[in-house]
Amino acid sequence: MKTLNLDLGERSYPIYIGADLLRQPELLTRHIAARRVALVSNETVAPLYLEKVRRGLEAFNPLDVILPDGEQYKTLEVLNRIFDALLAARCDRTTTILALGGGVIGDMAGFAAACYQRGVPFIQVPTTLLAMVDSSVGGKTGVNHPLGKNMIGAFYQPRAVIIDTNTLNTLPDREMSAGIAEIIKYGLIRDPGFFDWLEANLDRLLKRDPEALSEAIYRSCQNKAEVVAADEHESGVRATLNLGHTFGHAIETGMGYGNWLHGEAIAAGMAMAADLSHRLGWLKESDVTRITKLLARARLPVAAPARLSVQQFLDLMAVDKKVLGGKLRLVLLKRLGEAVVTDDFPSAALSATLNTVRGA
Amino acid sequence: MKTLNLDLGERSYPIYIGADLLRQPELLTRHIAARRVALVSNETVAPLYLEKVRRGLEAFNPLDVILPDGEQYKTLEVLNRIFDALLAARCDRTTTILALGGGVIGDMAGFAAACYQRGVPFIQVPTTLLAMVDSSVGGKTGVNHPLGKNMIGAFYQPRAVIIDTNTLNTLPDREMSAGIAEIIKYGLIRDPGFFDWLEANLDRLLKRDPEALSEAIYRSCQNKAEVVAADEHESGVRATLNLGHTFGHAIETGMGYGNWLHGEAIAAGMAMAADLSHRLGWLKESDVTRITKLLARARLPVAAPARLSVQQFLDLMAVDKKVLGGKLRLVLLKRLGEAVVTDDFPSAALSATLNTVRGA
Repeated sequence: MKTLNLDLGERSYPIYIGADLLRQPELLTRHIAARRVALVSNETVAPLYLEKVRRGLEAFNPLDVILPDGEQYKTLEVLNRIFDALLAARCDRTTTILALGGGVIGDMAGFAAACYQRGVPFIQVPTTLLAMVDSSVGGKTGVNHPLGKNMIGAFYQPRAVIIDTNTLNTLPDREMSAGIAEIIKYGLIRDPGFFDWLEANLDRLLKRDPEALSEAIYRSCQNKAEVVAADEHESGVRATLNLGHTFGHAIETGMGYGNWLHGEAIAAGMAMAADLSHRLGWLKESDVTRITKLLARARLPVAAPARLSVQQFLDLMAVDKKVLGGKLRLVLLKRLGEAVVTDDFPSAALSATLNTVRGA
Repeated sequence: MKTLNLDLGERSYPIYIGADLLRQPELLTRHIAARRVALVSNETVAPLYLEKVRRGLEAFNPLDVILPDGEQYKTLEVLNRIFDALLAARCDRTTTILALGGGVIGDMAGFAAACYQRGVPFIQVPTTLLAMVDSSVGGKTGVNHPLGKNMIGAFYQPRAVIIDTNTLNTLPDREMSAGIAEIIKYGLIRDPGFFDWLEANLDRLLKRDPEALSEAIYRSCQNKAEVVAADEHESGVRATLNLGHTFGHAIETGMGYGNWLHGEAIAAGMAMAADLSHRLGWLKESDVTRITKLLARARLPVAAPARLSVQQFLDLMAVDKKVLGGKLRLVLLKRLGEAVVTDDFPSAALSATLNTVRGA
């Protein structure tokens, strides 16, 4: 087992990474504050892993809260079902909420923990690659709104993140690829050596080689933890973690939540960001090619869906959180391994990217 | 104008108290972070004061969000209307939300500010006595759930609280009395000199003497600010501000939100807490009499509604946030001017209070 620490002073927490960690309930129980735990999961993950988690927690009178599976259920209405369940079971403000599932479950259970009785303790047990390397670390929680993704939420840190790489054995190939998109992102924005490593080891990840997966997850969490420790509330460098996300959120919202996986939309968005970065004279053409090639090898889309018009795209991006004072800000690449957040680009260059980087 | 400061380090903020402060827009504008402001109010208050507030804020492209009036609308569904309006108007994360209204508007607008795009700046402009002396100060925000009051929310501090005592001129008598209940509370829990002052000056408050009101609001906010500065997240002394609230919430929930005013329920709850405190041998009988007499002079109820059975009461109290680890904790009075939070009382004494302190 490897352990990382996310350094946030009094609110610091450990990230445990290893095979079969769900068989070590003491990793969980040491972070449960009182005598009650609520296990929030979904209809896909619960039949696979809930029993295993519950077995180590019988002393904590576990309450199961099982939600439907899918990004389309990441809404205020479904969030309220968590509150319904907690209140019906008379869970008090010392109850610890444990999220068992992918990014949607982690974001919703985390937001529920932030709001239930104005805040209860919270543990992340991510079961998808995307949640392991991205959403479970850093305290961003929330739900979607019909007019925009993650528009309602809170910064709320977990007490611990427990990553059992064995849970990836049941993950569909398409979701493995979606997770790899966020892994590649860390190489692009701040860790060029990791990008080289990914070019050399991508096939091992796709074959689910446990050692390669463990290494990729560890380096991803390390990058994320460093960025979050430096800028918890995203007033600066943390925004660079959103590479591809403004484009990607527009794709997700425009195509309807749940049709494109988040990681797929982000992959297309990163290809678009790379294209725009090249148009601004920053990123070399050969590096744009390296990026799209690696994404394509990971079986990820590298272009926007043709169905979305340029105008639709611009409208959808205008509502994104990265718009500040009415001006669209994007994360772009100064070079491979260095990201900037900027609103200083000609709108003609953005239009050219939106017109060019699109699929059939 | 009097100014108090709530000392919370970097998140400290001023509380301005005075007549006709809405005519001084610079009190507002100095706390607006960027170029946009959203004014959240209700159908009763907006026709009276919204235009006055908006007049000083034209430079900030004000967006009006008008909600229905009443505690029964303090729900997740109505909260979502604020998000709908903000997103439809493309408000970004620099938008400042201003709450213009009573406690319900302040709690909901504050919770919306806490959650919109994971947090935007927020200003309180309370227009009821209860909101001025209690809910607008201290950062408690949230909504109700059918199974319990304020069960979903956040600690989220405003940038400023602006109390224009002229807005009390339009407040119904019943709501004046409800506000006086929370004012009396500060005397009971920590400021016996203020209790004496209230006994001497209650009639001036009921007649809405501007100077007496200003003094009562100032001393109430001062007491509240001191308690919140010492214990922002209610891990200790802040809980004493909930004197009468566990009883009172049970009354509000049991009778249906909106039938009893919050302050009325708290008045009955404080009378019950006083009775129980006396049964434990703490509070003198003569002080119980002083308390119920002052509450009654303020035209407030001093007993629970007969319609709620003792068992219903106990069930409703069991879901309150003050229950910790399954044990009911109550705020009681060691003596007039000193409160404690305790779960150390015989259940027979509680039953006796529930059986005895009830109206027709």
